Amino acid sequence: MTHQEILDKLSWRYATKKYDVSKKLSKEELDSLLSAVQLSPSSYGIQPYKVLVVTNPEVREKLKAVGYNQSQITDASHLFVFAVYDNFDASHIDEYAHNIAETRGLKVEDIDGFVTLMKSVVNSRSEAELKVWNSKQAYIALGVLLETAALLGLDASPMEGFDAAKFDEILNLKEQNLTSVVIAGVGHRSSEDEVQHYKKVRKAKENLFIEI
Amino acid sequence: MTHQEILDKLSWRYATKKYDVSKKLSKEELDSLLSAVQLSPSSYGIQPYKVLVVTNPEVREKLKAVGYNQSQITDASHLFVFAVYDNFDASHIDEYAHNIAETRGLKVEDIDGFVTLMKSVVNSRSEAELKVWNSKQAYIALGVLLETAALLGLDASPMEGFDAAKFDEILNLKEQNLTSVVIAGVGHRSSEDEVQHYKKVRKAKENLFIEI
Repeated sequence: MTHQEILDKLSWRYATKKYDVSKKLSKEELDSLLSAVQLSPSSYGIQPYKVLVVTNPEVREKLKAVGYNQSQITDASHLFVFAVYDNFDASHIDEYAHNIAETRGLKVEDIDGFVTLMKSVVNSRSEAELKVWNSKQAYIALGVLLETAALLGLDASPMEGFDAAKFDEILNLKEQNLTSVVIAGVGHRSSEDEVQHYKKVRKAKENLFIEI
Repeated sequence: MTHQEILDKLSWRYATKKYDVSKKLSKEELDSLLSAVQLSPSSYGIQPYKVLVVTNPEVREKLKAVGYNQSQITDASHLFVFAVYDNFDASHIDEYAHNIAETRGLKVEDIDGFVTLMKSVVNSRSEAELKVWNSKQAYIALGVLLETAALLGLDASPMEGFDAAKFDEILNLKEQNLTSVVIAGVGHRSSEDEVQHYKKVRKAKENLFIEI
């Protein structure tokens, strides 16, 4: 893929308003999106979130009703819901440490310094600060999901406008110690979505970048 | 670019610890990264951030000293600093509205509904909430920067561990109503960076995704 092809795909994407409900993601497309999200960078590699992939039509109707009735919630092929932990604590670091050790054929004791560092970071932050920190990591993954979708010729709609507490209730997130922070529909744009023809608006480079 | 090629690039990337200081980004590579960041999605398309691209060696030495002496700060070809507004208010919406109108050949009055909506969102949030919101948008752009770098075969190091207040001072951000939130070096990994050989650790898909 040339530089221009990547930029063309990023220009082609837009926050899709109207989906073609008859066009679903193929298994290969979905698998690639899941792999891209799985490979997303995060602070220390902790991945402090879960991602719900919602296809159930009844559930999505309920979500739409508490999501300002945005049609993307029901009409995109798949709905991704990024959720962070309500109580993120040292136990999550222990879980991650076990994964590192297992993946790399080490003992947890071998990475004691790294584990102690991560725990001190987690313990130094309030629950609210941790939630913000974890949300930011989820937004990196959102960026990767949106770019990867575009590269694969898939449309997407990131959305922050929804009632998170009601989403949590409908998706049983509370009892899993999770809370929804941002969502995205992925699928194929409808040819009737006029917004695709709007000229993309971006800050001029001289207003966005400062060279030092 | 096939699905597998994209995933291979995302697997190839890692948070680079040691750069080859002799290898700089080409003008084409830098331009493509800037364009990708410029094209990044953000809430309402507002792009509530600026991105500093720091190459000045003296400035970078100063930044390293308040960035836990991480060598990536001085040794990467380019250092990206994402900064959000300290006081984000309705004037930013007006500026954006003018850009939309100019880009699309409209009058600002034509998009009055959209402008009113965005202003009501901005006015309903505290300064602290706006800073979090804007930071999240910057993290989407960070995700796009990191993925695009990987696709172009460039290495990158996202970093949250730095003294933001001192960065703001060194980069004169305060007087521009900005504050740094996250940084990333971009360049080429050193062949001596052992970390590139570590097996990538990720949550198994069954621990990361919940299908509904």
